[in-house]
Amino acid sequence: MTIERTRIDAEKLINFSTKALQKLGVPEEDAQITAHILVTTDLRGVDSHGVNHLASFYIKGIKEGRINVKPETKIFSQAPSTATMDGDQGLGFVVGHRAMMEAIHRAERTGAGFIAVLNSNHFGAAGCYAMMALEHDMIGIAMTNARTTSMVAPGSTKPAIDTNPLAVAVPAGKKPPFVLDMATSVVAGGKLEIARREGTSIPEGWAIDKEGKPITDPTKRVRGEGGLLPLGGTPKLGGYKGFGLGVLVEILCGVLSGSFASIPKESPPEARGKAGDHFFGALRIGSFLPVENFKKSMDEMIEAIEALPTLPGVKKIYTAGGYEAEVEKDRKANGIPLHSKVIEEFQELAKEVGIEYDL
Amino acid sequence: MTIERTRIDAEKLINFSTKALQKLGVPEEDAQITAHILVTTDLRGVDSHGVNHLASFYIKGIKEGRINVKPETKIFSQAPSTATMDGDQGLGFVVGHRAMMEAIHRAERTGAGFIAVLNSNHFGAAGCYAMMALEHDMIGIAMTNARTTSMVAPGSTKPAIDTNPLAVAVPAGKKPPFVLDMATSVVAGGKLEIARREGTSIPEGWAIDKEGKPITDPTKRVRGEGGLLPLGGTPKLGGYKGFGLGVLVEILCGVLSGSFASIPKESPPEARGKAGDHFFGALRIGSFLPVENFKKSMDEMIEAIEALPTLPGVKKIYTAGGYEAEVEKDRKANGIPLHSKVIEEFQELAKEVGIEYDL
Repeated sequence: MTIERTRIDAEKLINFSTKALQKLGVPEEDAQITAHILVTTDLRGVDSHGVNHLASFYIKGIKEGRINVKPETKIFSQAPSTATMDGDQGLGFVVGHRAMMEAIHRAERTGAGFIAVLNSNHFGAAGCYAMMALEHDMIGIAMTNARTTSMVAPGSTKPAIDTNPLAVAVPAGKKPPFVLDMATSVVAGGKLEIARREGTSIPEGWAIDKEGKPITDPTKRVRGEGGLLPLGGTPKLGGYKGFGLGVLVEILCGVLSGSFASIPKESPPEARGKAGDHFFGALRIGSFLPVENFKKSMDEMIEAIEALPTLPGVKKIYTAGGYEAEVEKDRKANGIPLHSKVIEEFQELAKEVGIEYDL
Repeated sequence: MTIERTRIDAEKLINFSTKALQKLGVPEEDAQITAHILVTTDLRGVDSHGVNHLASFYIKGIKEGRINVKPETKIFSQAPSTATMDGDQGLGFVVGHRAMMEAIHRAERTGAGFIAVLNSNHFGAAGCYAMMALEHDMIGIAMTNARTTSMVAPGSTKPAIDTNPLAVAVPAGKKPPFVLDMATSVVAGGKLEIARREGTSIPEGWAIDKEGKPITDPTKRVRGEGGLLPLGGTPKLGGYKGFGLGVLVEILCGVLSGSFASIPKESPPEARGKAGDHFFGALRIGSFLPVENFKKSMDEMIEAIEALPTLPGVKKIYTAGGYEAEVEKDRKANGIPLHSKVIEEFQELAKEVGIEYDL
C-alpha cells in the first residue's frame, strides 16, 4: 500500500494552525503555543500526537464546548518548590505550558519545581513539556493520565487505567538531548489505530481480549473488554512493572492534584479525573554540579552508548531522543510529511473557519 | 528439590546483624541502620537483597577494605531543595540513609528535596529508602547504578549499564502503601543467580547470549557477553523503554552526582562511577493538597484496582507493594525463613567476629 504524503514547511504549518485556533476564539499567544507544540511533535516524528489531530480532535473539542478557549488557570501553593494548578478545562497545551513554566520558575529559585494539574485536557506529547526545561539547563519531567481506560492490570482483563505516558528530558552538550517519552503500556493506543486503519496485524504481546488471549487482529479490540498490556507484557516478563509505572503516573497526576478526591467513591474509574490531569517537574542542573561538567559527561555517556557493538541488521544504537533528533533535522530542512487525508481536513478547516489555505 | 528453611525472628536478626557489624568497626547507630534496612527487606520478601548477603558481600567488603566503616560523608548544596553528597566509600546503607534523610528535611522546608550521591556502595533494596518518606507523609524516590554492567541496549549484545533499579513509595490511608521497586531490566540479576544455584531453566526473554539469541540455561551466561534484556524485551515490545529508564537512572545517579565527570573519557563503562552512585527524592504531600484527602483517594484507587475482575487462576490483583505488605505481616508474626546455607554462614560469622550465635 502506497501512502500519499506531502511535505509541508513547519513554519507555514505553525502559522496556519495558529490562525485556525484564533478564529475559534483562542487568544493569539495561546494559539501560538499550541501550534508550536503540535508542530514540534511532528518535527520529531511523533506523528500520532501532532497536527493530524488538530481538526478532528482539538478543534472539535473547542466547537463542542468541552475545551475552554480562555481558561482562568489558578495556582495554589503552600511551599516554594511545589504547587497545584486548576486548568479550568483549558486546552491541554495552554494549561501544560503554563504549569511547566511554573515548575521551571520554581526550580530556578529552589533547584526543584513540581506542579500537579487537574481539570485540564489532552496535551499532546508529554515529551514537548519535558523538553521546555532544556534551554534552562534543567531536567524536565511531564506525565498525564486520561479520562479513558485502556491498559489492563497483569492478571485482569478489564482496562484499569489509560496508557499514562511519562517523559523525561535531559540536556547534553554537543549531542542531542536525552528525551524519553513513553506510554507505560507496551505501545500507545495510536499504534493500534494505525494498524486498524491500514489493515495490518499487530504483534502478539501488545493487547489481549476479554478472555486474556493475545489479539493480533486490531479490529477485534472492544472498548472496555481486554486492552493494552502494560510494558513488560506478561507477569513473568515484568508486566507488573509497566502497570506499576502506569499507576504511579495516575497517583502523581490524578491523586496528587486532588482530581480523584472530588469524585464520589462509587464512580466508575472512567469518571475519575473528569478531564485529563498532569504532573510536571524540573530539576536545575546547576544546583547539583557545574552545568558544563554535566553536559560533558552526558556527551561521553551518549557516545559510549552509540559506540556499542550492534547485532546484524542494526545500524546504530540510539540513546532515547537520538533518533527523533535526526528526524527533526530532516523535517526542519525538508518539511513535515502529511497524509493526504490530513491535507484534505486542513483545506476543509480553512473554508470552515474562514482563513486562507496557504500550506 | 526441598529447600530447608528455618524461621528466624526479625528482632533477633537485627540484633545479631548489628553486633556483627559493630565488631567490624561500624559505629553502633550505623550498624543499627544497616541491620534494620537489611531485615526490613527480608520482612517484605525481597530475599535477594536482605541479610543473606550480610556475610558474603557486605562484611567481606569491609574486611577487604573496599567499604569505609566510618565514612565522613559531605554535602554540597547550592539551592534549598537540592544537594549532592560524597559518600566517602561508606556502607551503602549508611550513606543512603543519610542522603534520604537530607532529601526529607529539604522537602519538609520547600516541598521537594533531591540528593544525588557519588562514592557510595551497594545499598541493598532501593525500596527501603523510598519507604523512609512514608512516615513523613511524603512520596519517596530512590535509585542506584552499580560499577558492573549487565543490561544490554536493544540491538546490541554488550552489556551497557547495570540493572539500575528505581523505587517510588507513596503513603495510603488504611491500605498498605504503594511501593514500586523495580530493576529496569526484565528481571534483576539475582533471579538468574537463583536459577543457576537451583539448576532450573529461565524463561525466554530474560537474557540473551553474545549472538543475541535467547538464553534459557542460566549457566550459559558469560560476564561481558550478552546480558539481561531491558524491561519490555525486544524493540517491538518496547525494550527501548526499559533501556531508556535504565539510562535515566544512570543520568540521575552517575552524571548528576558528578561521578562520571571524574573519570577519564577512555575508561571502559565498567570503571565509570568507581563505586555505586545513588539518587534520592522526596515530595511533601501536604504542600500539594491536604494529606487526609490524598490518603483517602489513594485508598479508593487501590480498592478499585483490587476489585478488578481476575483471569482464571489469579486470586487477586495487587497494587505495587500490596503483596509485600502481606508477606511482611506474616514474617513479622512468624519470623523470616532463612536458607540453611545462610544459617551456617551466620554461625561461622559469629565465631569469626566473636559474638554469640543467638538466632
